[in-house]
Amino acid sequence: MALTFHDVQAARERIAPYAVKTPLLRLHALDDYLGCQVYVKAECMQVTGSFKYRGAMNKILSLTKEELGRGIVAASSGNHGKALAYAAKMLGVKATIVLPYTAAQIKVDTIAGWGAETVRCEVQERFEVAERICRERGATLVPPYNDEQVMAGQGTAGLELMEQCPELDTVVVPTSGGGLIGGVATAVKALSPRMRVYGAEPAVLPRYSVSVAAGHPVKVPAGKSVADALVSNMPGALCFPVVAEHVDGFVAVDDSFLLKGMKLLLLEGKLLCEPSSAIGLGAVLQGLLPMKKEDKVCFLISGGSVSLDQLDMLKEVKL
Amino acid sequence: MALTFHDVQAARERIAPYAVKTPLLRLHALDDYLGCQVYVKAECMQVTGSFKYRGAMNKILSLTKEELGRGIVAASSGNHGKALAYAAKMLGVKATIVLPYTAAQIKVDTIAGWGAETVRCEVQERFEVAERICRERGATLVPPYNDEQVMAGQGTAGLELMEQCPELDTVVVPTSGGGLIGGVATAVKALSPRMRVYGAEPAVLPRYSVSVAAGHPVKVPAGKSVADALVSNMPGALCFPVVAEHVDGFVAVDDSFLLKGMKLLLLEGKLLCEPSSAIGLGAVLQGLLPMKKEDKVCFLISGGSVSLDQLDMLKEVKL
Repeated sequence: MALTFHDVQAARERIAPYAVKTPLLRLHALDDYLGCQVYVKAECMQVTGSFKYRGAMNKILSLTKEELGRGIVAASSGNHGKALAYAAKMLGVKATIVLPYTAAQIKVDTIAGWGAETVRCEVQERFEVAERICRERGATLVPPYNDEQVMAGQGTAGLELMEQCPELDTVVVPTSGGGLIGGVATAVKALSPRMRVYGAEPAVLPRYSVSVAAGHPVKVPAGKSVADALVSNMPGALCFPVVAEHVDGFVAVDDSFLLKGMKLLLLEGKLLCEPSSAIGLGAVLQGLLPMKKEDKVCFLISGGSVSLDQLDMLKEVKL
Repeated sequence: MALTFHDVQAARERIAPYAVKTPLLRLHALDDYLGCQVYVKAECMQVTGSFKYRGAMNKILSLTKEELGRGIVAASSGNHGKALAYAAKMLGVKATIVLPYTAAQIKVDTIAGWGAETVRCEVQERFEVAERICRERGATLVPPYNDEQVMAGQGTAGLELMEQCPELDTVVVPTSGGGLIGGVATAVKALSPRMRVYGAEPAVLPRYSVSVAAGHPVKVPAGKSVADALVSNMPGALCFPVVAEHVDGFVAVDDSFLLKGMKLLLLEGKLLCEPSSAIGLGAVLQGLLPMKKEDKVCFLISGGSVSLDQLDMLKEVKL
C-alpha cells in the first residue's frame, strides 16, 4: 500500500489549521552563482523551524481518540522531536520524547518547555527505550520518516510549491531516510510529470545513491558530515519504493560545497538555514546537477535549526 | 512642490522592469516576542541588498538623455553607493562614486566591479569632492534621500506592501534622513489613511523626534550607534515636510534592543538583516510602541548588508 497523491492531499487538509504555508521565495541574488533561476521553499519558516512539523502533525491527526489518549512517543533530539512535542502541545496530547544524555540542554529545555515528558538514556539505546515505553503504555511511536502518514504530511511542502509556482522545472530536496523526498516527489510528479525531482545527500552517507543503483535498500557505512539532520545510513523501508518510483536521481555532496551553499544563502539570499538544508545548493555549486540559465529551480530549505556559534564555521568558507 | 502619491505611482512603473517586488513575509515565530502579528517587508532581498536601489533607479530613469550622458555622482560607501553603481550599470550610464579612504576595500571592489569610477578622498571632504566633480563635468549628483525622485522611488516599497496585505494596521520604518519613511508614508496614507506609520531612529541620533517636536528640521549632536546606515544628524529639508505631514510618530531606540531585534529576526525569523534594519523590532521590544495581539504590524527590513564577523556581536545578546 504505497503512498498516493491522495494521501498527500488528505494530509494537507488535515494539517492546514496548524501548519504554515511557507513562502516560496525567488532569490535573484543567487542566480549567477548557481547558473539558474533560483527559488527556495522556506521550510525554515515552518512552525518549530522545519518541515518535520508537517509529518508529525499529520500523524497525530490521523490517530484515533483512543490512541491519542495513550500518548505518542519519539526518539529524537533534533527537529523531529521538537516538531512532535509542539504538535502534541497544540492538540493537548501527551508526548514523550526520548533524548540521549548527549543532547544539548537547550534542546531538552525547549521540548520540556512545550509540556512534553523527556526521558534520557544512552544514545545507542534510545530506540529501544522508546519502543519499551510504547509497549508499556500502549502509546504510539511516531517515526521520523518511515511511516506513510509522516511521509504524506512532509509531502505537503511539495503540494504547496507546485501551487506557488507551477512552472518550476526542478526541485532539489535534502535527503536522509527519504520521508521528505518521497512525499514531495509523490505530490510533484502527480501534478507535473515533466518536473524533475533530485535528492541531495552527504557524500559520506550516500544511502540513496547506493540503494537506487542496487535496486533495494542498502545500509552504508557510518560517516560523519556537517549535515547533522541527514544521518540515517539506510533508506526507510516504506520510503524506498516511493522514492525509487518518483525521484529522477541522487547526488552525493561534499561538506565543503554544502557550506558554500549555506554561506551563499545567508549572505546573498539573506536566509538562515541549518547546514543540512543547504545541501541542494551545494550540489549545484559542486557541479553535480548541471543547470541551464533559464531553468526555474526550487531548493527545498528543510530547516533552520542553527546557532550563532555554528555560523563561525562559515567564516573561512570562500564563495 | 511636495511629494505626491502620483510621484510614487510613477516611480513604481518606471522601476518595475529593474527592481524586485520583495516578499512581504508573515513571521509567526516572532508573534509572541513582539505581542502582535508580525509581517516583514524584506528589502534585504532587493537588488543590491537594500531599498536604496529603488530610489537610485528612479532618479536615474527620470533624468534626460543629455543629463545621463554627462554621468551621475554620489558620495557614499554604503548601500546608496552600491545601489547607484549597480543601477547605472544596468542602464549603461557612467557612475562616479566618491568613497572615503576609510571605506572597507570589499565595498570599493564591489562598486568598481560594477564598472563605476571610484574616487577616494578624506571622509570629511567627500561631499565637496562629489560636488566639484558634478560642476566640472555637468554630471548629476544623486543624494541618498533629500531628493523627490529618490524619495518617490524609495516609497514604492510602501505601495507594494499595501498591495501585498491591505489589512495591515501599522508599518514601522527605520529612519535616518527621511527618504524612505517619507516615500512610504505618502504611499500608505493615500491608500489607507487609518494605517499607522511610525519611524524608528537610534536613541543617540533622534533627529526626527526632536525636529517634529520643534516643528522644523533640527540638527542633533553627533552620536555613535550600531545602526551604521542611520547616521544623518538632521532631517532632509525636502523630506521633513512630507514626513511631518504623514507620519504618526517617532521612537528613539537603544542599541541594546535593536540588537535583540536583529538576533530575533535571524534565529527565530530566519532572516538576515543589517543592524539598522532591526530598529523597528527593537522599538517594540523596548516597549516604545505598544501593540495589541491582533494588530497586523509590518516591519520594513531596509537592508541586509552585514558580514559574518558582525554577527559575533549578537552572541552575548539575550532574547
